Amino acid sequence: MEKYINKAKVLIEALPYIKEFNGKKVVIKYGGSAMVDDAIKASVIEDIVLMKLVGFQPVIVHGGGKEISDMLTAIGIESRFQNGLRVTDAATVDVVEMVLAGKVNKSIVQLIQNHDINAVGITGKDGKTLKVKKKLVDGEDIGFVGEITKVNTKLIDSLLENDFIPVIAPIGTDEAGNTYNINADYAASAIAGALEAEKLIFLTDVEGVLRDIDDKSSLISKIAMEEVDTLIQEGVISGGMIPKVECCVEGLIHGVRSVHILDGRVLHSMLLEIFTKKGVGTMFCKYFD
Amino acid sequence: MEKYINKAKVLIEALPYIKEFNGKKVVIKYGGSAMVDDAIKASVIEDIVLMKLVGFQPVIVHGGGKEISDMLTAIGIESRFQNGLRVTDAATVDVVEMVLAGKVNKSIVQLIQNHDINAVGITGKDGKTLKVKKKLVDGEDIGFVGEITKVNTKLIDSLLENDFIPVIAPIGTDEAGNTYNINADYAASAIAGALEAEKLIFLTDVEGVLRDIDDKSSLISKIAMEEVDTLIQEGVISGGMIPKVECCVEGLIHGVRSVHILDGRVLHSMLLEIFTKKGVGTMFCKYFD
Amino acid sequence: MEKYINKAKVLIEALPYIKEFNGKKVVIKYGGSAMVDDAIKASVIEDIVLMKLVGFQPVIVHGGGKEISDMLTAIGIESRFQNGLRVTDAATVDVVEMVLAGKVNKSIVQLIQNHDINAVGITGKDGKTLKVKKKLVDGEDIGFVGEITKVNTKLIDSLLENDFIPVIAPIGTDEAGNTYNINADYAASAIAGALEAEKLIFLTDVEGVLRDIDDKSSLISKIAMEEVDTLIQEGVISGGMIPKVECCVEGLIHGVRSVHILDGRVLHSMLLEIFTKKGVGTMFCKYFD
Amino acid sequence: MEKYINKAKVLIEALPYIKEFNGKKVVIKYGGSAMVDDAIKASVIEDIVLMKLVGFQPVIVHGGGKEISDMLTAIGIESRFQNGLRVTDAATVDVVEMVLAGKVNKSIVQLIQNHDINAVGITGKDGKTLKVKKKLVDGEDIGFVGEITKVNTKLIDSLLENDFIPVIAPIGTDEAGNTYNINADYAASAIAGALEAEKLIFLTDVEGVLRDIDDKSSLISKIAMEEVDTLIQEGVISGGMIPKVECCVEGLIHGVRSVHILDGRVLHSMLLEIFTKKGVGTMFCKYFD
Amino acid sequence: MEKYINKAKVLIEALPYIKEFNGKKVVIKYGGSAMVDDAIKASVIEDIVLMKLVGFQPVIVHGGGKEISDMLTAIGIESRFQNGLRVTDAATVDVVEMVLAGKVNKSIVQLIQNHDINAVGITGKDGKTLKVKKKLVDGEDIGFVGEITKVNTKLIDSLLENDFIPVIAPIGTDEAGNTYNINADYAASAIAGALEAEKLIFLTDVEGVLRDIDDKSSLISKIAMEEVDTLIQEGVISGGMIPKVECCVEGLIHGVRSVHILDGRVLHSMLLEIFTKKGVGTMFCKYFD
Amino acid sequence: MEKYINKAKVLIEALPYIKEFNGKKVVIKYGGSAMVDDAIKASVIEDIVLMKLVGFQPVIVHGGGKEISDMLTAIGIESRFQNGLRVTDAATVDVVEMVLAGKVNKSIVQLIQNHDINAVGITGKDGKTLKVKKKLVDGEDIGFVGEITKVNTKLIDSLLENDFIPVIAPIGTDEAGNTYNINADYAASAIAGALEAEKLIFLTDVEGVLRDIDDKSSLISKIAMEEVDTLIQEGVISGGMIPKVECCVEGLIHGVRSVHILDGRVLHSMLLEIFTKKGVGTMFCKYFD
Repeated sequence: MEKYINKAKVLIEALPYIKEFNGKKVVIKYGGSAMVDDAIKASVIEDIVLMKLVGFQPVIVHGGGKEISDMLTAIGIESRFQNGLRVTDAATVDVVEMVLAGKVNKSIVQLIQNHDINAVGITGKDGKTLKVKKKLVDGEDIGFVGEITKVNTKLIDSLLENDFIPVIAPIGTDEAGNTYNINADYAASAIAGALEAEKLIFLTDVEGVLRDIDDKSSLISKIAMEEVDTLIQEGVISGGMIPKVECCVEGLIHGVRSVHILDGRVLHSMLLEIFTKKGVGTMFCKYFD
Repeated sequence: MEKYINKAKVLIEALPYIKEFNGKKVVIKYGGSAMVDDAIKASVIEDIVLMKLVGFQPVIVHGGGKEISDMLTAIGIESRFQNGLRVTDAATVDVVEMVLAGKVNKSIVQLIQNHDINAVGITGKDGKTLKVKKKLVDGEDIGFVGEITKVNTKLIDSLLENDFIPVIAPIGTDEAGNTYNINADYAASAIAGALEAEKLIFLTDVEGVLRDIDDKSSLISKIAMEEVDTLIQEGVISGGMIPKVECCVEGLIHGVRSVHILDGRVLHSMLLEIFTKKGVGTMFCKYFD
Repeated sequence: MEKYINKAKVLIEALPYIKEFNGKKVVIKYGGSAMVDDAIKASVIEDIVLMKLVGFQPVIVHGGGKEISDMLTAIGIESRFQNGLRVTDAATVDVVEMVLAGKVNKSIVQLIQNHDINAVGITGKDGKTLKVKKKLVDGEDIGFVGEITKVNTKLIDSLLENDFIPVIAPIGTDEAGNTYNINADYAASAIAGALEAEKLIFLTDVEGVLRDIDDKSSLISKIAMEEVDTLIQEGVISGGMIPKVECCVEGLIHGVRSVHILDGRVLHSMLLEIFTKKGVGTMFCKYFD
Repeated sequence: MEKYINKAKVLIEALPYIKEFNGKKVVIKYGGSAMVDDAIKASVIEDIVLMKLVGFQPVIVHGGGKEISDMLTAIGIESRFQNGLRVTDAATVDVVEMVLAGKVNKSIVQLIQNHDINAVGITGKDGKTLKVKKKLVDGEDIGFVGEITKVNTKLIDSLLENDFIPVIAPIGTDEAGNTYNINADYAASAIAGALEAEKLIFLTDVEGVLRDIDDKSSLISKIAMEEVDTLIQEGVISGGMIPKVECCVEGLIHGVRSVHILDGRVLHSMLLEIFTKKGVGTMFCKYFD
Repeated sequence: MEKYINKAKVLIEALPYIKEFNGKKVVIKYGGSAMVDDAIKASVIEDIVLMKLVGFQPVIVHGGGKEISDMLTAIGIESRFQNGLRVTDAATVDVVEMVLAGKVNKSIVQLIQNHDINAVGITGKDGKTLKVKKKLVDGEDIGFVGEITKVNTKLIDSLLENDFIPVIAPIGTDEAGNTYNINADYAASAIAGALEAEKLIFLTDVEGVLRDIDDKSSLISKIAMEEVDTLIQEGVISGGMIPKVECCVEGLIHGVRSVHILDGRVLHSMLLEIFTKKGVGTMFCKYFD
Repeated sequence: MEKYINKAKVLIEALPYIKEFNGKKVVIKYGGSAMVDDAIKASVIEDIVLMKLVGFQPVIVHGGGKEISDMLTAIGIESRFQNGLRVTDAATVDVVEMVLAGKVNKSIVQLIQNHDINAVGITGKDGKTLKVKKKLVDGEDIGFVGEITKVNTKLIDSLLENDFIPVIAPIGTDEAGNTYNINADYAASAIAGALEAEKLIFLTDVEGVLRDIDDKSSLISKIAMEEVDTLIQEGVISGGMIPKVECCVEGLIHGVRSVHILDGRVLHSMLLEIFTKKGVGTMFCKYFD
């Protein structure tokens, strides 16, 4: 009996967090290891379903790098990268769209629906949700890699109003109607901004921002926007973390209340972040409190 | 860290129950010891607030026997009972209404609001919610004791739509506009029926229906409507339990899906009933499964 | 036959007034003798019902001093006053709330409902309608006497939208959830302001503002806000009339179009004020015409 | 002062009638002397405006026989009648429509609007409100005289929802789009039936149904549908009264609650009927009480 | 078969125009020869019906000079004009209203309804749509000729929302409730401005604005507002064209996007203007592109 | 000029058809040659866009056999068929979903959006739109080939209400959440039935049903449901035409008003069918007229 009463207490402890985020939009960038390991995948989906059930409005933006590379290999197209971005010719972008929209996207939709919560998978092409222009990398054209110029939220809004969880593949179109691949981090950030989301969560393969990259206990729990430049100059934020932090800052600038870099390799990391005092990962917000 | 992950697991375990009752109305008859002990009082309110936050629509119907007796004593009116019902002359019904509507009702409203969830206290007089006729006890007139003839749900519905928790004192009026005291169990049952509630919960001072009244391990977890008569004939249901079970059956007949007699002396008994597999108390339902 | 045609003419004469106030909110402070004499009580309720039926939106704020004193006496608590305000310790505020919310409030609700118009009785506690802080009298703490800091109109609005007449007892809560007694005149004024009411009517035990207090024919029919200071300096407005006039001015400042001090001892004084050219009492408005 | 209090009492006496008809549709056939005498015209309009203001939904259907005859004379077309119905060739129906829709209709609209209540004048042609077929009189074709086959209430409903008083000229069209004149009594009856009006009022040039046509004191106040045949056989209902009573019965059959033949020559006859116990004229209803 | 495929191509060519005006309001001043010749009348109505069906919101304002003169002659009232405006005494304005509202207006309604699209005929008197003051001509009073001071669009809006085509006769009332005749061009311009219409189309008896009045090939296709003064000074816009161009400019100033003077003598001139690249007539717009 | 007037006439001729289908749902099965040839593809999309613009509600269900086979070949999976249905193991259904949802579906969405009309591409998996069970072919299991058991129209309805054109890939899920390939003809028929569509159009590679398969002039324009059995027995409907006709009949049974087999190889065949008297292909309807 005591065991059950303890369970009840856990639920009661969650009360203030449920109240705080009731009806709020939470955009989740889902990618990396969290999309590969089956146990973690299950835990991510459970977290999203719980958020939905207690009154949040989750919106998922996903990547799919591994599946894309596998398919390109399968049909004999070589993967090439420049500055961490995939060089994307016409044949490649077709495969990228096909794998993201037709495989990864729909499998996330189904995992959610197995919990009896309805989801709808779309790309930024549907309803002209994501308009892009060609992104140049150091002034160089690397193909159909897009930079978002406009997020049209009408379709996402109508799905939320009809109680569906939107699952979004980061594909967009330019004015001429060409298809572009978009980095999922940037897409999540732009969508969260346009939706004026309460939270933007990046599920990553790191613990968060570490002051000393070799010391996991050096995790920085909270970073205000104005500290970012200094942290970059000090080398604390460096390498692949820089564009990710850029996305965090972009989100804040466009009105997201807090942005989180979480360790997607930990079971239920989102629940821990949202429903307990045990903050995990690094939170970015606009101002010091 | 493990502690937190275990907490997350408890939340995840609650998922199917949250899903099942999402948007459903749950009527709670709040009375007895659960209104006296401060720790239990706090746990009842927390349970109600949690239900509200995860998407249920709780409606509270309360008694207040002890406070009424105290006040009658204070102003020198003697309490008399017949067949367990208070003999209620004009002076008494004035005090009953004053204490229920002006004291007990508002204190429950405030306890809920301390959790930042808005509640509104009404009686069955407001908005002509409860219409009654005089209840005769063994053919005898015991004063302003009412039997509900109609529940007008318009006011309750409008409060629910506006996101308030309705807290209802069991006072009603007859066609001539006279004020009547109503037994809170019957009021809860009639209201739950009129609202077509999913659940009706009686917080009582017993464990539930026991097969052997001296053996707490003989609790009957589930009773189908058709078994009730037999259980009464066998003497399993007897004494003060009979009218309570009558209320359970009334609720089921009017469309409530399940009715529960819970032990209001146990902390978080409602959460245990709703969010865990550990059924507590006795559940009444229309049919065997 | 002529008699009937004359009656029809009276109805026709009311036309322009009905047009003028159609759909407008009218807040009525109901107190004093008008709550004691049965014939006047009946006439006040009839006036309110008529206003409702011809399209106004009446909102009632009531006092209840006499009934409170009676009950305090009955249970042996002594009444003490300071500057006209009741010294209100914890035991007293409990009685005040109980009598106002559980007795006076519900009896007004029932009188209205006897006319087949639905009313709902609430206090400022319900739906957190009235937030207060402790009111100091000449810097002195006289207990749970509240000064309104915020009126949350959501509950009142939803009752009006659902066609109920709100009947409000002047009880509020502070940030810590403590219960406070509020002067009904101030409560009526604050509520009228928050609702942007067309009219605020004080039913009092005087004819209005008299230029010469001993000469009833010296009634001042209309006072512009800017005249008030002068009238106080001249001693025309003095004594207990000063706080009442303060409430009038407060109402005007917060957007009420006109505020009236009527003689609640006269039958149908509100109808006379609203539906005939025969102005009764004193009207306060923001500007000279 | 007493005079004013008596006025207030008249208003209060109207209360139960206002309550009874609140939000109900009342169709008024406006014709005969009531359209000619200026004082009566003014009183009819005032009655309609009052009904509107206290919450009724008046709908006016008007005739215009006199003005039509005048115009036909003015342009040299001879008026011919058969069985009380105007023989209506193509030239005549043009004039009928022009006078009804362009003159009588708009002048009623304006009289109402002078009271600051908005009205909209339409014919049965607008929005295809009245569909007709040719009416044969004793098997004979007398031209463009229509018998209503369908009332399409969409336009009337949208005007009522937008708070306009609909003023309807009895002109309709057949399947081929030809224009027809319709007897205003029949039009009023059909429209009242289609709107499921609470009341249908015929303003006529008689006192009502008299048992002895020469004795005004022999007025029959109330007639149940089933009595009509007997009254016709007895000759009590005879001549021009027969088609009018037919319209009354038609209205009742199609769902109108009560139908009234009032003396339109009496000032404020509608108010007398609706707001006082002094019934005037004859009321037809479906059943004996 | 080829013939049919060519037809399909015509429909496809109309696509961009349909898209452009979807849901937009188009006000059409219907008058002159286009109201006389039966074939043209049919083509105008067909054009309006097509616009409605493909998603435009047409609003018609009509004149009726010829029919008015005929009727005045028929009943022996002489027509007099001053500066092109009809001198309108009380007897005349009655006839004007009767003919416009009761004859011309209803015949247009019926022509539209023969296509199974519902229309409603109103005047500016209905719903107080057009408020006017007396228009002086060179300082002289020429009777009940009105100048619009306010357009109240509530009735027109409610008709549009209910999917009716409004057909408006240019009659208005002044503050005292007197009836006035209004020049249909000015009425159309004021209504288009108040509705913030996309297009205002004048169906006239000229080709448009010709640079050389004797050379039809000198049609000016497009005029920006700022060119108008120069064109008047050059004598290109002169005579009866000046007030018409004034109406065009008025419309543009009040927010109409483009105003067109079309040749109403040409079959389907509106369709040609709207659905093909072949601009016909003269278009006025606010700025050079 | 005459050329333009002729164009206007074509538009006018389309009027009755536009009226007839205004607001009606039209489900289009898009497949076969019409998806391969670029000119025809363009004409199909133009037809759909025109339908949308003139007020229809088109819904597209597409196949994609050729692209699926190409991709299977590209990644080395052999295509096998049984009774015309693809044998679909787990690896194959993954490719089918990926190609249909990620490639064919999105390319149709984009073609429509190039016309500035928004479309949204979904599969029957999204929003649990299509529930299936395994389809046995002659009692044999051929893998993940689904037979529709339920169409949940909530997502399609919400897209239509938000003015998007739904483009649906025929993928569904069973109770266990497995993915299934569905024959597009059956999917279109089930969806049209569930939507109670006005029309269901199959764009095929045949002229329609020919009485003599070698004589194109023997096209049967109209077939009533009850004739189908006879036509099959006579061998007129045979081979691959039988399942297609079964889909037509299924649609009719579920409430579609008319079902059409059109020749998708002809330019604008849908426009010809809908907007001209020149019926093309074969129409199936429930009854003889």
